Amino acid sequence: MESFSSGPNRRAVLGGLAAMPFLSGPFVSTYVRAQTAPDDPLPSWNEGPAKAAIIGLVKSTTDAASPNFVPPDGRIATFDQDGTTWVEHPVYTQVVYCLDRVPAAVKAKPHLKEVEAFKTVLSGDREAIAKLSLKELEEIAMATLTGITVDQFQAEAAEWIATAKHPRWNRLYTDLTYQPMLEVMRYLRDNGYKTFIVTGGGQDFVRVYSQRVYGIPPEQIVGTAGGVTYGYDKAGKPILTKDPKLLLNDNFAGKPEGIHLEIGVRPVIAFGNSTGDREMLEYTTAGPGVRLGLLVLHDDPAREYAYGPAEGLPDTKVGAFTQALYGEAKAKGWNVISMKNDWKKIFSFEE
Amino acid sequence: MESFSSGPNRRAVLGGLAAMPFLSGPFVSTYVRAQTAPDDPLPSWNEGPAKAAIIGLVKSTTDAASPNFVPPDGRIATFDQDGTTWVEHPVYTQVVYCLDRVPAAVKAKPHLKEVEAFKTVLSGDREAIAKLSLKELEEIAMATLTGITVDQFQAEAAEWIATAKHPRWNRLYTDLTYQPMLEVMRYLRDNGYKTFIVTGGGQDFVRVYSQRVYGIPPEQIVGTAGGVTYGYDKAGKPILTKDPKLLLNDNFAGKPEGIHLEIGVRPVIAFGNSTGDREMLEYTTAGPGVRLGLLVLHDDPAREYAYGPAEGLPDTKVGAFTQALYGEAKAKGWNVISMKNDWKKIFSFEE
Repeated sequence: MESFSSGPNRRAVLGGLAAMPFLSGPFVSTYVRAQTAPDDPLPSWNEGPAKAAIIGLVKSTTDAASPNFVPPDGRIATFDQDGTTWVEHPVYTQVVYCLDRVPAAVKAKPHLKEVEAFKTVLSGDREAIAKLSLKELEEIAMATLTGITVDQFQAEAAEWIATAKHPRWNRLYTDLTYQPMLEVMRYLRDNGYKTFIVTGGGQDFVRVYSQRVYGIPPEQIVGTAGGVTYGYDKAGKPILTKDPKLLLNDNFAGKPEGIHLEIGVRPVIAFGNSTGDREMLEYTTAGPGVRLGLLVLHDDPAREYAYGPAEGLPDTKVGAFTQALYGEAKAKGWNVISMKNDWKKIFSFEE
Repeated sequence: MESFSSGPNRRAVLGGLAAMPFLSGPFVSTYVRAQTAPDDPLPSWNEGPAKAAIIGLVKSTTDAASPNFVPPDGRIATFDQDGTTWVEHPVYTQVVYCLDRVPAAVKAKPHLKEVEAFKTVLSGDREAIAKLSLKELEEIAMATLTGITVDQFQAEAAEWIATAKHPRWNRLYTDLTYQPMLEVMRYLRDNGYKTFIVTGGGQDFVRVYSQRVYGIPPEQIVGTAGGVTYGYDKAGKPILTKDPKLLLNDNFAGKPEGIHLEIGVRPVIAFGNSTGDREMLEYTTAGPGVRLGLLVLHDDPAREYAYGPAEGLPDTKVGAFTQALYGEAKAKGWNVISMKNDWKKIFSFEE
């Protein structure tokens, strides 16, 4: 059985899934490194409105003499993950994980071998896999992410994330976090903010690596969540089993709803990159006092990808930064972060 | 319309609700204050197995040379609230809140006036109120806690909790937190632990006062949770409305399930006082490495209440520390905290 998590086959599968012409484009580093002041908290950011807005917000909310001062308990910052803090193209990392888990899931539940979606994945037919419907992908997610204990899931996901690589860069997915966003997280924490990931992805998945990768502990990860059921194994030991039951779909309106469920405080600053983050930014910026909403615009095909409205690209399966969202951002004063212009460096491994 | 939140009427209503003979017993402070070392982190605790177990756990999990060392991210401590960190007799504080909100709820939704449970509360007939069924109390909770925005709820609950008093002591409910448990929380935090409330009560309710009363921020409160729905008010402003839909019943098996949902890490130490906490203690103490489960036994009718198995009292509506739970505690090595013997002082206002 071939694996989808590394090597040339997987690269082809993922290429097929996304069918993005720029996937195989050469990696060209075009930015000019500017001189950075030694005490610059955001050294990977070019000077510009986005950087100025972030620093301005932090300064005004942490200065006790400012009318916009926010006491430490209220300093909540939320970050979408896919496309906001790490690469989401050509396929969400967690979808790759689920495809890679199919052989093990079929081994555990042999009847799945007869189910069309699983047959397709097992066939290795890249074009067919690329055409799996959202419903079929959900079926695969349910089969690969549930029916196991929480401990089992954590062990399997930790093993995978430690080795699986992105086909374009041939690097660990966790190396493909955006250096400028890691700097923002650190800067916010250094100023008494608590940083949270609020992701449409599974919160159990992100919790496996969040402390190591983002410096964010598991309890500060809000994401799509299934139920778990408490019970006992054969030896009478307590176990939590992951259920195929959705408790929270942490996308769109689900983001402010999930923030209320697991945080209970309206954020002061929120980062997103797609229509799935719209309601989180609306909710954040509608709060009293000073607030800030920011959207990452993917407009750098050389260093990463370009799939914003300016490119006139059709909405893809992932990360739709639509013209409508762009319009709302402009109307509401949300800050649009241009990866091309605002970020000196995208990944920590760039020279 | 009479209020249930203060004055002699309310006192009688609550007395009727609980029908506890010791409710009107004299407040007698019987403990002998022992000499306390100046660096004692738990000065309100008498020396004994419970205090020794807590200090022993903290020392062994925070000493980098110990085989039981737990890195800071894993240092999670969970506390039940009602009966564990504050008084739960004769009626859960949040139930009193709901009864007090009935007139406002009926004003907002006049049809409730014709519903039996609401009629009963509005009648002021204490005996009839005391006999309300659990189902009727749930009806009242749904009507008084949902159908309003999160902001409205927070404002109303904050106003109530700032003034409502317990009938026995004629003190704010928030003054009836247990001083020894506040010391444990502080001691754990001073040693890099994160403290969480994991309550069968509503998490939105506890979040209103948790920072001020326990030093625990809203995002570290896990409790029974209803859904919220994101939407817009007439002016187009985003709002979250509390739904009459239960997302998490944070009692019994719901406690480890809620811990997984909102924390994602198994606790190292957990405190409870009733069968509703059994699964949380099982789950906590079944983890690898050193773990500690503790149960508060209410055995001090003079200073607080007595309703543990030793008193041979029938199970009450609240806080059942049953003989079976006592047996499981002994069998599993959970520590039973005797309020009478282990606590020098129960409330901060005691001399």
